[in-house]
Amino acid sequence: MYNPKHFEQSDLSVVSALIEHFPLGALVTLQSGALEANHIPFLLRGDLAAGGKLIGHVAKNNPVWQLASADAECMVIFQGPSAYISPNWYPSKQIHHEVVPTYNYAVVHVYGKLSISHDPQTKLEVVDHLTAMMEAGSKAPWGVLDAPAGYIDKMLEAIVAIELSVTRVQAKWKISQNREDRDRLGAAKGLASEASSPTAPHMARMIEAKTGIGQP
Amino acid sequence: MYNPKHFEQSDLSVVSALIEHFPLGALVTLQSGALEANHIPFLLRGDLAAGGKLIGHVAKNNPVWQLASADAECMVIFQGPSAYISPNWYPSKQIHHEVVPTYNYAVVHVYGKLSISHDPQTKLEVVDHLTAMMEAGSKAPWGVLDAPAGYIDKMLEAIVAIELSVTRVQAKWKISQNREDRDRLGAAKGLASEASSPTAPHMARMIEAKTGIGQP
Repeated sequence: MYNPKHFEQSDLSVVSALIEHFPLGALVTLQSGALEANHIPFLLRGDLAAGGKLIGHVAKNNPVWQLASADAECMVIFQGPSAYISPNWYPSKQIHHEVVPTYNYAVVHVYGKLSISHDPQTKLEVVDHLTAMMEAGSKAPWGVLDAPAGYIDKMLEAIVAIELSVTRVQAKWKISQNREDRDRLGAAKGLASEASSPTAPHMARMIEAKTGIGQP
Repeated sequence: MYNPKHFEQSDLSVVSALIEHFPLGALVTLQSGALEANHIPFLLRGDLAAGGKLIGHVAKNNPVWQLASADAECMVIFQGPSAYISPNWYPSKQIHHEVVPTYNYAVVHVYGKLSISHDPQTKLEVVDHLTAMMEAGSKAPWGVLDAPAGYIDKMLEAIVAIELSVTRVQAKWKISQNREDRDRLGAAKGLASEASSPTAPHMARMIEAKTGIGQP
């Protein structure tokens, strides 16, 4: 990824938070010479660095797990908040008009080696951890034990646990941090008043704070 | 992409609308044997089928355009609305408890051949069309002619126009259309009341309508 120094996000806690809040990753693989992607909710275990892991599961009918190989490096793409930035929002536009539009976004690419497990206990743990993460905001969180054991066993039969062992991470935060302060804050204000995307409020907060994942 | 028949979205007008509303694509390429992705706002010209084109631009400093080759097939991933679906929202849970969580999403993969242009007129047209699309919702849309011509010329110098000639398209709408009606509508209601993601309101509308991109 083209990632100029001023857009690089090296704070791994901030990068991890993006994955936590936007967990649907696009797992990109090369299958018989063709690019493929499967969209899978992932949970980060450990640090987002070599040694850390992204865990998830796929349908047993999804051939992607059969291609898991110790040799090939896969990539998981996480897109966080993104929004169009209009030049109209820059106060400097009123003065010199030397402004053009841009598109802000925060994205993470996690590279790693894919491994799989058919072990029922491993699959149950993956499902249990993912569910706990997803239900964390609920007043009465659903848990795997809420379903009949025989039913869960049958469901586990139909999935395969996957794990991406992290080899490297790329993170790009294109959040107007390269603009002068008045234009940067103008962009945040513009997004807050004329949302250009569903994640515009998140992006507005990121622009203001110059970091974070921008929970509104 | 693993895409069971009941999740396939074959209505190209609906698929095109997703790209229009979620235009930030992840352009995936293979560079020196490694998977790479660059995030680029795209505009669809023509039909989303062989012969159609996705147009955009990248910084001249971004090496991705140097790898444009007539031979390699690239992929652009567009992620639309997505949201976690809690089993708590299914009325059938109260009866038999045989339910598990899932994650809904609508995604499009556009495959094609990448070509580029350094021609100033072509670059100006790309920038002009993209800007018109992005500013369409504004009361006083900014246009390229609002900036000094010499400044725009300088900006155009720094970019390269890119074009993806579409070869094939994959679209997966995982929007609870495989659930019985009461559970499907329960999921929509659950998302509307306990948003599990920024695009949850969009997903709720898609679930209700069984199609579309779900503008709330």
